Parts: sequence; C-alpha cells; structure tokens
Amino acid sequence: MLLQRHAPGFTKVPSRQCKPSVPIARQPRSSVCARATPGADLTTNYVIEPVSFGEDAVLECPEMRSKLVVRPSPFVTHNNFGGGFVSDQDRVALNSMRFASPDSAGASRSNFFPHGGKGGINVLEASMDQLNMTLPPWAIRAGARREIYFDPSQTTAAIVTCGGLCPGLNDVVQGLVNKLTDYGVPEGKILGIKYGFRGFYDPQVKPIVLSKRVVDGIQLQGGTILGTSRGGANIREIVKRIDMWGIDMLFVVGGNGGNAGANAINAMCRQHDVPCSVVGVPKSIDNDILLIDKCFGFDTAVEESQRALMAAKVEASSARKGIGLVKLMGRQSGFIAMQASMASGVVDACLIPEVNFKLDGDNGLLKYLDGVIKAKGHAVVCVAEGAGQDILEDGGQIGTDASGNPILKDIGAFLKDKFKAYFKDADIKYIDPSYMIRSVSTTTNDRIYCKILAHNAVHAAFAGFTGITVGLVNTHYVYLPIPVIIQAPRKVDPRGKAWNRLRAAIGQPSFQ
Amino acid sequence: MLLQRHAPGFTKVPSRQCKPSVPIARQPRSSVCARATPGADLTTNYVIEPVSFGEDAVLECPEMRSKLVVRPSPFVTHNNFGGGFVSDQDRVALNSMRFASPDSAGASRSNFFPHGGKGGINVLEASMDQLNMTLPPWAIRAGARREIYFDPSQTTAAIVTCGGLCPGLNDVVQGLVNKLTDYGVPEGKILGIKYGFRGFYDPQVKPIVLSKRVVDGIQLQGGTILGTSRGGANIREIVKRIDMWGIDMLFVVGGNGGNAGANAINAMCRQHDVPCSVVGVPKSIDNDILLIDKCFGFDTAVEESQRALMAAKVEASSARKGIGLVKLMGRQSGFIAMQASMASGVVDACLIPEVNFKLDGDNGLLKYLDGVIKAKGHAVVCVAEGAGQDILEDGGQIGTDASGNPILKDIGAFLKDKFKAYFKDADIKYIDPSYMIRSVSTTTNDRIYCKILAHNAVHAAFAGFTGITVGLVNTHYVYLPIPVIIQAPRKVDPRGKAWNRLRAAIGQPSFQ
Amino acid sequence: MLLQRHAPGFTKVPSRQCKPSVPIARQPRSSVCARATPGADLTTNYVIEPVSFGEDAVLECPEMRSKLVVRPSPFVTHNNFGGGFVSDQDRVALNSMRFASPDSAGASRSNFFPHGGKGGINVLEASMDQLNMTLPPWAIRAGARREIYFDPSQTTAAIVTCGGLCPGLNDVVQGLVNKLTDYGVPEGKILGIKYGFRGFYDPQVKPIVLSKRVVDGIQLQGGTILGTSRGGANIREIVKRIDMWGIDMLFVVGGNGGNAGANAINAMCRQHDVPCSVVGVPKSIDNDILLIDKCFGFDTAVEESQRALMAAKVEASSARKGIGLVKLMGRQSGFIAMQASMASGVVDACLIPEVNFKLDGDNGLLKYLDGVIKAKGHAVVCVAEGAGQDILEDGGQIGTDASGNPILKDIGAFLKDKFKAYFKDADIKYIDPSYMIRSVSTTTNDRIYCKILAHNAVHAAFAGFTGITVGLVNTHYVYLPIPVIIQAPRKVDPRGKAWNRLRAAIGQPSFQ
Amino acid sequence: MLLQRHAPGFTKVPSRQCKPSVPIARQPRSSVCARATPGADLTTNYVIEPVSFGEDAVLECPEMRSKLVVRPSPFVTHNNFGGGFVSDQDRVALNSMRFASPDSAGASRSNFFPHGGKGGINVLEASMDQLNMTLPPWAIRAGARREIYFDPSQTTAAIVTCGGLCPGLNDVVQGLVNKLTDYGVPEGKILGIKYGFRGFYDPQVKPIVLSKRVVDGIQLQGGTILGTSRGGANIREIVKRIDMWGIDMLFVVGGNGGNAGANAINAMCRQHDVPCSVVGVPKSIDNDILLIDKCFGFDTAVEESQRALMAAKVEASSARKGIGLVKLMGRQSGFIAMQASMASGVVDACLIPEVNFKLDGDNGLLKYLDGVIKAKGHAVVCVAEGAGQDILEDGGQIGTDASGNPILKDIGAFLKDKFKAYFKDADIKYIDPSYMIRSVSTTTNDRIYCKILAHNAVHAAFAGFTGITVGLVNTHYVYLPIPVIIQAPRKVDPRGKAWNRLRAAIGQPSFQ
Repeated sequence: MLLQRHAPGFTKVPSRQCKPSVPIARQPRSSVCARATPGADLTTNYVIEPVSFGEDAVLECPEMRSKLVVRPSPFVTHNNFGGGFVSDQDRVALNSMRFASPDSAGASRSNFFPHGGKGGINVLEASMDQLNMTLPPWAIRAGARREIYFDPSQTTAAIVTCGGLCPGLNDVVQGLVNKLTDYGVPEGKILGIKYGFRGFYDPQVKPIVLSKRVVDGIQLQGGTILGTSRGGANIREIVKRIDMWGIDMLFVVGGNGGNAGANAINAMCRQHDVPCSVVGVPKSIDNDILLIDKCFGFDTAVEESQRALMAAKVEASSARKGIGLVKLMGRQSGFIAMQASMASGVVDACLIPEVNFKLDGDNGLLKYLDGVIKAKGHAVVCVAEGAGQDILEDGGQIGTDASGNPILKDIGAFLKDKFKAYFKDADIKYIDPSYMIRSVSTTTNDRIYCKILAHNAVHAAFAGFTGITVGLVNTHYVYLPIPVIIQAPRKVDPRGKAWNRLRAAIGQPSFQ
Repeated sequence: MLLQRHAPGFTKVPSRQCKPSVPIARQPRSSVCARATPGADLTTNYVIEPVSFGEDAVLECPEMRSKLVVRPSPFVTHNNFGGGFVSDQDRVALNSMRFASPDSAGASRSNFFPHGGKGGINVLEASMDQLNMTLPPWAIRAGARREIYFDPSQTTAAIVTCGGLCPGLNDVVQGLVNKLTDYGVPEGKILGIKYGFRGFYDPQVKPIVLSKRVVDGIQLQGGTILGTSRGGANIREIVKRIDMWGIDMLFVVGGNGGNAGANAINAMCRQHDVPCSVVGVPKSIDNDILLIDKCFGFDTAVEESQRALMAAKVEASSARKGIGLVKLMGRQSGFIAMQASMASGVVDACLIPEVNFKLDGDNGLLKYLDGVIKAKGHAVVCVAEGAGQDILEDGGQIGTDASGNPILKDIGAFLKDKFKAYFKDADIKYIDPSYMIRSVSTTTNDRIYCKILAHNAVHAAFAGFTGITVGLVNTHYVYLPIPVIIQAPRKVDPRGKAWNRLRAAIGQPSFQ
Repeated sequence: MLLQRHAPGFTKVPSRQCKPSVPIARQPRSSVCARATPGADLTTNYVIEPVSFGEDAVLECPEMRSKLVVRPSPFVTHNNFGGGFVSDQDRVALNSMRFASPDSAGASRSNFFPHGGKGGINVLEASMDQLNMTLPPWAIRAGARREIYFDPSQTTAAIVTCGGLCPGLNDVVQGLVNKLTDYGVPEGKILGIKYGFRGFYDPQVKPIVLSKRVVDGIQLQGGTILGTSRGGANIREIVKRIDMWGIDMLFVVGGNGGNAGANAINAMCRQHDVPCSVVGVPKSIDNDILLIDKCFGFDTAVEESQRALMAAKVEASSARKGIGLVKLMGRQSGFIAMQASMASGVVDACLIPEVNFKLDGDNGLLKYLDGVIKAKGHAVVCVAEGAGQDILEDGGQIGTDASGNPILKDIGAFLKDKFKAYFKDADIKYIDPSYMIRSVSTTTNDRIYCKILAHNAVHAAFAGFTGITVGLVNTHYVYLPIPVIIQAPRKVDPRGKAWNRLRAAIGQPSFQ
Repeated sequence: MLLQRHAPGFTKVPSRQCKPSVPIARQPRSSVCARATPGADLTTNYVIEPVSFGEDAVLECPEMRSKLVVRPSPFVTHNNFGGGFVSDQDRVALNSMRFASPDSAGASRSNFFPHGGKGGINVLEASMDQLNMTLPPWAIRAGARREIYFDPSQTTAAIVTCGGLCPGLNDVVQGLVNKLTDYGVPEGKILGIKYGFRGFYDPQVKPIVLSKRVVDGIQLQGGTILGTSRGGANIREIVKRIDMWGIDMLFVVGGNGGNAGANAINAMCRQHDVPCSVVGVPKSIDNDILLIDKCFGFDTAVEESQRALMAAKVEASSARKGIGLVKLMGRQSGFIAMQASMASGVVDACLIPEVNFKLDGDNGLLKYLDGVIKAKGHAVVCVAEGAGQDILEDGGQIGTDASGNPILKDIGAFLKDKFKAYFKDADIKYIDPSYMIRSVSTTTNDRIYCKILAHNAVHAAFAGFTGITVGLVNTHYVYLPIPVIIQAPRKVDPRGKAWNRLRAAIGQPSFQ
C-alpha cells in the first residue's frame, strides 16, 4: 500500500517536519484516546512541534488515484453544468486572521506564527490551542473535478450514519444519493448501512437500497432513515464486507468516533488493497470538530434551544423567586450553550465545560444568582451537560459509554439540588430538552449546507480521494485529512471574543 | 479637514494607486448612479485599474482621531471583560481563496491576481467582477479597542434606519442601544431618528429617546421601531441638525442608498469640522452588498421564502397541469431566489436578474416547462423581481422610486400572463409574498449576527473611525470604508459554483 | 327508487310540512343557484314556511338499507373496541340556545320558535336566517353502528376531493383510508379519483389505488394527494363509472359545489338502482356550510392568516402614514376575516361581505382611517374577498368560474387604489396571502377533527346511509341530509355577538 | 346576606330537591376535599340524588343585585355596539345529546335521564358520572346586559392568576383589562395581584396597576405577567384587603384550587356584606373542569405536545429497538395524553389515569410493546403523569403539595426503568416536556377563546353576578355557579367514544 508508507496528510513538506517517531498519539490527549477505536493509531506521521511551511504549502489529502483509471467527468458534457469545475490546485486559506500580538482577542501560542497557524477561526472564534500541530497555510478546495477515477455505471456506494442524532442526517443522506445518481451510479447500487457501523456485520440487519425516490422528502423528517448507533466498530469485519460487496466508495456521516472509524477502515482498506474510497462528512451537534467553520445541524440546534430557554424564562418570571435551569448539549465544548444564551437574551448565567466555576463564596454562582433574583425577581441559568464536572462530588467521570465517550454525571440535577438547598423559598424549574433538539429537521441554512457537504463528498470520492472529510473553512468548501480533525474536540476559547461577548452582554462574572 | 485632503479609504499607499483624476464615478455604473444621492460624489479618490499592493497592505479606514482626545476604554477595568480587546493592527484577509487558473469555478479577471483580489468570496460565492478596483489583501479587524476617543458620559448618539424593511432592524437597534449604554452613554442621550433620514428635518416628526428599557424585547417584532422611508436625503439639513443637537456618533442602518447617504453626511461633517463619527451597518435583504459574507436578515428571508415555495408546490401538485409561480425579492441580485430554490427542493426553474433567459423557442422557458409538466404533471417557477427585465415588452425600466432605485416592471404578472397564453388548460397560481418575508423577526442565526454587527459599530465609533461600515468577511468582523462597498450591487456569479450547483440540482438548462 | 318518491331528508313528518309544490328552489336564492350543478333540483321537497315539529322529531337521513343485507360490524368482536357503538336512536340537539326575545343577540325570525329552529349556533354564532326551512329539534348521531350493510371484504370504495384547496384534505383522505382498512376493505379496493369529479371520466387521468401505506404521512403535507379541480361534473358519466367499477361507497370531500354534485350522483344512483352509498365530508375554508359548528381547516386558515395580518401591522407601523391592507378568503361569508381580525389584535377595520360599507362621507371608511392614522400614525385593514362588491364601480360580478361560483372583482386592488387616491402621502402595502393559507398542513385541532369526520363518514356508508354528510353540531358528530346544508352559504350574522364583539374590540363604526 | 340563606345555585326548584342536610361534602370525594381550601364548605345546598327538573328549569347563578344600584350599560348608546345584548332569560342547553339507551357510547347512569343530565358533553365526550348531582336542563347565557350594577367610573377591579402555568393566562388578563376599560373603569383602578392569592397580603409584594398600555402585546408571551403560585390562601386576609382597597370586582383565573378559593372569598364577602363581585375564569391545562366544552390553553398544549411525541418517534425509529417515552401533563385526567396521541399518529400505547393497566403478563404493556418492536423495530409510549399510580411499588401518593394536590410519584422514570429491565438491548429515550408546553403563548383558537371568556367575565361582574364562573357549553358562553364545577375533576370516560376512537386508531389492547 503506497499511502501507508508515506505521510497521508502532508506531501512535498521537508522531512524534518514529519517525524514518525514522535506521533501525536503519545501526547496526553485523553479525549482523543477515549473516542478513537482501540487499536487504530490514527495519527502516525503528524508532527506536533511548531514548524514553518512555505507560503504555498498545502494540507494535502490522501488519494488512491494510482490504483484507479482516470476518465472525464460525466458533467464535462453536461448541458446544465457551466464553469462549475474545481482544480486540485485551487486553494483555500486555513487561516484568514492575523493577530497583531498575543494580546489580541483570540490570539494564542498556536496561532501567533508567521502564517498564522489557525487563528480565531470563524464566527465562533474557537481557540486552536488544542490543535497539536502546525498546519500549512492552505487547504485543497472541494468540488467537482474534470477528471474522475471511478466509472459511475460500475460503481457501488455505501452510506452509513454513526453516533447520536443531529439535525441534517437525512439531508446529507439525500444529498449523497442524489449526487451519486446524477453522476450515473445505477439504481440498486447505492446501499444504506443500517444502525451505524454494526449494520455491516450484524446478522439481524441488512443494508437497504437507496434511490432518489426513497430519499425524496426525507429532509422533512428529523433523525436518520438509516438508523444509527453508538459503539465501537469491528473494522476487520467491515472491510471484509466492503470487499465482498464490492463497495467502491463509503460515506461515513459521523462525529469524532465515526471519523476515527472511517480512518481505521481507510487504513485497513489501503493495507489490504481494497479499492474503496472512504469519505467522511463530519457531524457534531456540539460543533466540536476542529478547523471547520461550523458543523451541520448546529444552527438548527441553537435555534431549537431557544424554546427551552424561553420556557425557562417564562416559568422563572411567572413565579416568585423563580429559577429556570436549562441543560443543553455540549460534552466537552459549550458552543450550543454559548450561542443559544447569546441569541436568547434571557440567560443570566451560562456554564460551559471550558470554563470552571465555583458555586460557593462571594464570587460563586450561588451568591451571584442571589443578587440577580434580588434585582429582577428571578433568574435563568443555561448549563452545558459537560460543565462543572470538577465540582460534582465524587470526581467527575463515571465510566465510558459504548462509543468510548465518558459518561458524564448529571450537572443539571446536581445544580437543581444545590439551588434548592441554597434558595429555600425559590421555585426551581429544570428543563432538559436534548432529545427534542437533536431530532428536529433542519432550518434552511443547514439544509443547504448539508446538501453541499454531501455533494462535495461525492465529488471527493469520484476524484479518488480517500481518508478525507469535507468541511467549510473561511466560507469555502475544502477537503481535509481525517486524522487532522479528530485530534481533539474543538473548544470554546475562554479568552476569545465570542465567550467574552456573551459575558459582557449578560454581565456574568468569572465565578472564581 | 484633514481627511478631506487625503484618500479617505487608503492611506499609506503609494500615490500611484490613488488617482483622484480618474474617479470611479466616470465609469458607466448606472446602478450606482441611480442609487447615489444626487450631488454626492461618493467615490472620488478610488482607483479603478489593477494595481498591486504589498503583502501587508491593508484596506484602511478613515478616522477622525486627531480631532479627538484619547482615553482608556471603560472595559479595561471591567470585571466581565477578559481578553476581548482587538488591535488596530489585527488583520483579516479579504480573500481566502486562490484559484489555480481562470478556469476554476468562480475565478474571474478581477480575482485572479497574485493576492487574489477578492475571489469567490463566501458561501454564496458571488463574482467580484463588479468590484471596480483592486483591493489590498487585508482588512482592519473590528472589535473593542483599549483606547477610545469619546467620553461616554458626554456622548450623544443617534440611530437611523433607512430603506425597505429587512429582518433584523430591531435587533441592530437594540444591539446599538445596549452597547452604547454598556460604554456609559447616559440615559436620554441616545436618539432614534424617525422614518429614515428625513426624520432629521421633517417638522412633523421628532426623534425619540432610546434606552435599554425601550428596546427590551423589540427583537421579537419585525420591522423597525424607528420607522423607515425611502427617498433622497437633504444632507445639508442633516448635518445642520447633527451639529445643533451635538450628535457625536451617528449609526446608519441602511442599504446602498443609506450607505451613500451616510457617506455624504460623513463627507460634509468632515468638510465643516462637525465632530461626528458616522458608522454604517449595511442592510440588504437582497444580500447585494459587496465584499461581505452575508447581509443580516438574508438567512431569515430565505427561511421565510420556503413557505411561499412550498405553497406553490402544494397548489401546483394538487391541480391538473398546475403551475406555481413565486416572485421573490432581488432587484439586481438573485441571491434569495437562488438560495430559496436550492433549499426548497421543489423549484423547477429559477430566474434571476444576472442570467438572461428566453421564453420562446426550443431552448426557451416555456418549452422546458412543458416538458416538466408532461413528466411530473406540474411545475414550480421561482423568479426574482429583477429578472427578465429585458424581455418585458417595452424595454424594462419605468422610472425610479424616491430612493432613486429603478422601478421594475412586474415580471411576475408578465410571466403569469405568458404561462396562461401558452398553457391553455394549465392552472396557474401566482404568489408574491414579499411583505410577508420582509417583516418577520429574525432567526437565531441572524439574531446573533445583528447583535455583533451592532456592537462592533459602537466599538468603531468610540475608536474614532468615521465613514466606515461593519461587515463579516471570511467569518471575521471587519471595518470597511463605505465608498468601497457601495460601488455597485453584489451579484450572483453566473459562472460560479452556487449558481451551477442549483442548476445541476434541479436540471435547469440555460434557456438560451 | 323508493327514496326518490319521498322527501329525502324528512320521513315520518306529516305531509303538510312537505310541499313539493313549493320548492325552495323557487325562492330568490341566487347564491345557491349559482353553485348548484345545472339540472340538479337539489332542494325539492323541502319546505320553507315555519312549521312545528314534535319535540322528538328528528332530521332524518336517507338510507338504502332495504337494498342491502345486514350483518354485524366487524368491531363487535374487536378486542380494541369497548362501548364505542352508537344507536340510530341517539340524538343530538340541532339547537342548544333559546332566546328570551328577538332582541337578544343572535336571535332572529328563523330561530325564535318554540324549539328554537337553529339559533346562534356556535362559537361563531352565525345567523340562521338564511336557512330556508324550519328544522326538527334533533339530528341523528354519527358513529359506528353494531350492524352494517356492506361486507367489507367485498367492498370497493372511492374517494374524491373537489374544489379549492383547504387545510385538512389529506387528513380526511388518510382517515377514510385507515378506517376503511380497519373495517376490512381489502388492499386494492380503495380508489382515489384524481383531480375532482372529472377524474371519473377524463380519459387522461386514472384513479390511483390507496392503502394505509400510501397515505402514511400525507397529513404532514398541505393540498390533496388526489388532486382537485373546480368545474361542473357530468353526473351521468360518473354514475356510469360507479356502476362499471362496482363502487359500493363514494366519499366526496367538497364544498357547496362538491356536495351538490354528491347529491346529484346520489339521486341518479337511486334512480337507476346503482347500489352505491354516497357520503359527503363538507369542506369550506370560508366556513360557510350551514348548521355545522365549524368546517375542517377553518381554524388552521385563521391561524395562518395571522402571519399576513402581522406582516401588515409591521409594514404599516414601520412607515410614515403606513396602511397595511390584507385580503383574506371569504366569497360570501366573512368568517375568516372576522376571526383572524379578532385574534390578531392589530386590525383597525374589518370588511366582510355580509356588511355593506361606505367609502366616502363623514361616516365612511376613508374618513375613519384618516382618524386612525392621525391617532396612531398608521392603520391596518382586513378585507374579505367578497366584501364591498356593491361599491365596485361597474356593479359587481363579472361572470362565473368553472364551478359556477361568481367571479368576484378584486376588492383588494380597488381599495388599494382608493387609499392611494385619498391618502396622497400614505405608504400602502397590500398583501394577498390566499394561496399560502389554503396550502398549509393542519393544526392539531383540525387534524383530529378531520380524522373523526372521516371515520364517521365511513361508519355512515357501512350503516347504509346515502346522500348524507357528516358534521359537528353542538360539539357532537351527526349525519345530515346533503340538501339541507347546501341551501345557501352560511353567513356571519351582522347582529350577532361575534361580529359585534369584534366591532367593540376594535372600535369600528358602522360605515353607514 | 340574602344569598347565604338560599341555595346559591338553584332557585325556583322545589324544596325537595334542595336538602341542606345532605351536603355533597359528606360524600366520599377525596379529590375535591384535597383541593378545597380547608374550612370552606363549598357545596352546601347542592343535592346529590337524582331529581327531576321542569323542562324550563335553569342552573341559576348567585347574584348581589339587591345590594346594588341598577343603571344602563354604557354600551347602550355606544356607536359600535348593535344588537349585542343578552337577556338574563336567554338559555343554553347544558346537554345537547340524548342517548337511546345506556348501551350507547358515552351514555351512563348520570346522563341517561329524561332531560339527559349532562351526557357525552362535547368533542372530548367526558363522562359525567363524576358529577354528583342532577342538573336542570338549561344554563344562563353569558354576555353583556343592557343594565349594569356598578358605576364604571367608580369601579375598582382586581385580577389574580393562581396555580400552575397554562397557555392563555396573559390573554385572559389582557381581555379583562381591555373590557373593563371599555366599560369605563378609569386608569389606575385596575389592580393586578402578584403571585396568586398570597399577593393580597404578602408584605413583600404589592399589586401592580394595569392598563391597556401595560397589557399591550402580553398575549405574545407565555406565562402570566401577574405571576402565580400554588398554595392555600388566607381567605380572611384577602377579604380584609378587598374591603380596605374598595375592590368592587375580583377576577380569579385559576383551576379547581383557584375556583375553590374564589368560592370561599365570595362566601365570606357575602357573609360580611363586602360588596365585591367574585367571578372566575376556569383554568386547567389538564382540561379537567366539569361541564365546560374545553378549557382555555388546552388546544395549545395539545399542539405543543406534538413536538415531544414527534421527537420520541424520531429518536425511537432512528435507533435499533428504540423506545420513545413521553410523559405529558394530566394528574387525574388524561385528556392531553389522549388528544395528543390521537393527533400525532405515532403513539403505540397511551396510558392515562382513568384506565388502569398491567405491566406484566400476556396482556400486559411490556408484552404488547415487545410485539410492536418486533413488528416495527421501535415503539412510542405516551403516559399522563397521573397514570399507573396504582402500580408504583409503594402505593401511590407521597404527600400533597402547597395547593393540596397530591404529589404524584414519577410514572415516567418508573416506566423507563421497567423498560430498561425488560428490553435488555433496547435504546430508551425519555422526554418530559411539561414546562416547555405550559409556557408557550396561545394558538389563534385559544387566543380568541381567552378574550371572549374574559369579556364575559367582565359582563358578569357588571351584571351583578358573583360566585360564578364563565364557561363554554355546547359552543355557547354561559355562567355557572362555582360550586357546581369544582365538585370533582372532569375525567376521560373509558367507555366513551374519544377513548375508544384512540384505541381503535392505534390498536391498543386493554392491558388487563
């Protein structure tokens, strides 16, 4: 396997920057380890220390073209396609921000380099300190190529959705099926794997056949028509099925776990010369995928969260000394809680995993809420499910779930009890709307985003890329090597503008 | 007036690039002329021919600091503000895309330069061919500065909303008032000018006093609590009132017309040494503002447009040979029609101002629809109000409205009649939902966007900038000189990816 | 045919009350004539002069049991059915109101009788003056009977939807199919007639086969999956197909026109001994069906109308001297306009067909609006499409459409022009949201209502009734003879409480 | 006090029917006792055994006219009021259904009488077995009277909201304030009592002054601007304040507890000759108020419940062996669960307090769900909070809350655990959306309903009635004596049509 012997993500970079002997995996990144499929050393060949790239260096994507036959895209002669092709040499800047000094909002060690590393990257301006490597300045642009590496009429494709529900899964499935069909993949050769990776080998479930007709209208439903599941995947069994069933391209719609699985599948396909292109569509309702502007479904989730926050406000303000407490998604990253609080205009305290808080003492949350209630008569608190794990009595984590994600203790119930004990005569209403948020269908914005991600995933597979994922960076669609984005969950930067903007807007102190 | 004698938008650039003797205004840009307030030569000093900038060159913003006294920001010692300051030397790349060749989707003359000009700039990937100048690679980052140039306790601010309704006006007004108050502008010193610019001098209307209490909850309403109007402004009278009333900062929320007015006000203030900072918040439901990623309210408008398109689909498909025809906003730019069609999944033909179409003949729209109806039994057409002006019998424009915008002939009614004549037994339902779209309150996404734009506008004024506007570029907030963004309306690039993606998705031919 | 020779609606009543020689059709009821299918004398045998009934008299329903074989309902032994049967002798009072005197709100000639006729009948309290007959005090209760008259396993059923769209059509179709299947009608024997009555004989369209699977989820769409059309029906051709195709029960979901058609089909079936049970589900988005509490889809339409009224309010109040004008459905009855205005709280003048208004003069609409604008700065007007036909210059009606409904002149455009002429400097925004209202899916309330109507329609057919329709009267489901409800459109009572409540709430004068 | 010495609810009935020596309160009606304010014998003078009334007998309402001065209504000469008056002799039938036999669906002991008692009373067809008395056939019609008994210009009114949140509270408050103002009650004389009854005497809260301006737009918010609380009221202290503050009319918007309080307040006012009219607006999101067609807010709650049920469906169907479990409101009555399940079309089992169910055994819930999952792959269960209290291990009730309502054990958590234990590999998602349902603003239907209830409450007070409540009966508005409606919570009739219709629709067995 050619790709196995070279750095999958970087080519043309001086060897000094690629030190296979110092794999990222040796760094203490528990969250990655916890999520990665055991046994898959996903990150070999990526360098951690600061390096400098040439100003034209690009974050290259693994491909398998040498194993395949090139041919013109069917769209070249297509009546409805004018000027829509993209070149492999088109580039998108990974970073569009240059900080004057490390004092600037959002600036940090990792992004204060000549080419910027990756700075306060987007609307949400997450810090990239958690990115354990220096990246070249450019990424490869996504889109249809003039030349493709699979004969559509002979192509079999498979689609799998993994992990928890997120708005947009059906939109992505629909987009994949539609674009595959547009390329010319014949009816009957697009398979939907049921209930996540296990659907490849679980004897009780069989793949379903997808077609334009089958996916018509599914975007109006929430959830995923393919079903999904958490839990580790038997990579060997999956690759065996890919080989047996003659799957040429596999599309994995999943989070960090799903992407890790996709990466492992790709590695084993390459190792065993199974000619299948593996392409990911990154999914995280928590919006905790590195590098990309925003995950699909995130906007929808923030929109839907408003209902819970507004309900909390109404309940709190209709009661004497009312406290509305809402727990939102966000295991390691507080993006939903932060954005939903910012939009709502009704939250008095927002608690996220990235920022510790004290309950007691003069600067603690309880004292602060006491003041809010005295001033306004009531208060609303929004807490991300992963916040405050350090203050839960017995020390946080209580095991891991089937996907290897840490099982979090319930900060919502904990706070509710603490509030009850502290505010004797308060009227506390606790709302946990998670399933009602995850399961809705997409807003228009996310609907379009999902479609384009799906289309670009299909373009990637036909272009011979593999082990890559699609993403939106600085408003442009790009291809990224999977290992780069699954190093760690992306997090809210406590020193960045987004978090400070929220704190300024609601007047929240530091609780320290 | 210092600024009057220098190029307002560019400083520190070699004189060769600034040729006051070749003003853009001499170029045939009828749409700009039509919108500009008569008499205001908005664009003097900007150069049109390609020039090359150094790689650190920045699109500078006019400021009036030399007239003012610097002092520390009140947030420097603010308990709730940690690390949120921005430096004047922080930079945001105006372009994050580099094309391999002019053949790449979205590439064009103007963006195929060493530093890229401004390429397929964002999600919507509009062409920048209409940008009549070459820009430097960087813009100035928006945000709170450590040093400010007005004493908040002595500051009087005014806010005016201009032009047609757009979702988010109240969000912006609220954000301005809240942030001004946070800076310390006293109760009673924030004025709301009623019904647009004329509210400055119309004897029948008086400004209202705005406060946090007054703007509480207004984001839940559509429209603008200030009222708005179209129509030219008497700049001299406005500046007189600014002077008389002691207004230190004026915030103009408006479209190309409003921004042109703001520019003229700024020019006259500078000319007469009236020390008022003029800051724009660009508003266009058509999304036709140059350079910026997306206008506030646009996402909301696209979302709301779905109702009309879905109604058209239901009506069409419930009738024998049904044709649903929806006219959406978009005078010169078809962004709403394009995005709404893409999201809906029900549109068979999308007609926008940027792309001419023939009705008759084998490649014409009518023949195409005939085929659609034969295949599916019905058809849905989405037309932007500015589309097809060339085919309206008597040659298009029938005058201009009070704002100088050309009055468009009704392409919707025209097509309805044409369809009736061509499809004798068809059942045609024509929907014009414009007022129902303009007047809704914002989606969560737009809600946050409006707030941040407003906050950054206030930061700009306190930082001593004037004649500038806030904007989102490559996901970061920046300040831009007003003249640069009002050169022309931004348009959909007919050769770009967004338009081609839609055509590919719905199978629309070129109608040529 | 037995039923032909007797009064279809009344049996057991003394002959004095049934005077075939004084048919209602001779009365000047132009609206009925206009809607009736030509040639069908729908109303023969119904008496117009006040008569008195015994206190146990019932509005009997035609049935065809003597032609059929009775057998037990399949639900008699059904595990999930306990106590749900209804007796033919169960009764529902047609009138639950007794007026003290003709002075009471809602009282009138026709309802001020010993047994009350039919008084201010329901939430909307329409006057029943338009009911050209005296009714007995009781109606027959709808619901499942213990004995049925068709063998479900041998039954073929057909469903047709007629007339304009209305929210709930798919809910009704789904409910019919589901209940037919529950009775045991086999897969393949439920036909959907396409595009209204003409689908029976139009060579270009064929019926579709309906099943639980086909109708699964259709309630989430607006419109009708069967398609619909306006226009007269060829009764002879329809009955021929019913006979040929062996249709045992026909369900007609339609308005006054559809019900008139159903009545004519029933009459001809009886005449020619075609053993088909014809059952109507009355549909009118205008809510203008006599006797019943409320038409399905009406609540949804009122709910959806709020968007247009709110848009009008926002547009009007955001402009200087803004006038928002909204035209809602309501050809002969102003229920939607009245209820939507009442709910919205933003309407300053509501104009309905039942109440004439003057434009000019001291008591005219224009003068009144002038006062409103002077007081509030803007005004909102809601007009039903059938209002003010008398003041349209050339005398109103300009022909009839394919269904025989009068083509109304556009009161919306007329008022818009009048306002423009009268209020020189006003900013007038005219909104016509009709298609966007008709095409939405149902609110929960209507969803349940549609299901129960559909179920009761199926129960009626299996119980051997024919020529009847289901309805909700005083909150109970009943069966009513079709001719009774299609005598005239139900109208808002200008002296009733609902109309006066609205006028009191918004302070609207009489415009006389 | 005149009224004290006579039966408050019945006049003109033969003495045999009024046996003060057999008060209802002696009957074992624990639920009433639990809710009633201790010490208030609310029901004295009402008779429990079946009696027969004359056919003109009316359920009379207590009034205090003899203490007051009569005068003409201000609306008599009101320009905008034509024909809207109601007579005290106008009548609405309490029952509009006549059963053929006790075998008919919905028939029962209490409603199978000559005049029908009160039968399957409305859309929801609740059984009236729980009504511990026989009622006369008619009720008094609500509405404006020509003569009133308070001088509006001298009137002080107070409004209080009690108990848990329910959609529509603000609509009712707004309607009361608007109609009081229309009558002529001066600005400053309409008081809003804060946080329920305790707001009368709690030293920490003061009443607020309500006006048209204050209540403008509050219908768009959920909750109540007055605040609310649970808990017993100190009647003596309340009456003291009513007397001191000169309150002429008190409007109590509350559930069974609030109405019991209103009744006790009225009794003490009468006892001490405090000339205050006490009028209730019955509020119950559970829809468990006797006699009336439907409680305000109920439709909205059912509508909003759909979100939770749909989320449960999506979650369940996206997982392998998924079970979605939704707990809805319904302490003693399962109306919300029943209606929401009927509307949704996705529920496989609906569990309500009125119908016991077994978990285990061949006919138990678990076995049934096992079959559903085997057939469909997943299942959705909707449970009312008060269901299955008998099967909760330690015997149900665990005390009472501040309002005297029994504290229910959590059937939702209980079922979730049971499901987990029984279905080892199932994926169970439990949703408790109660606060998100209670706190929303009203749908259009409820909005109008609330307004009219409020208007009629004001008409009642001005007409001199006291100790009464407004209600909708057979689609007409009536006045009812408070003691009659608070005898017991209204319940779903397990043998009625509504419950059987649901079971038939979803195929739910009896679980016995």
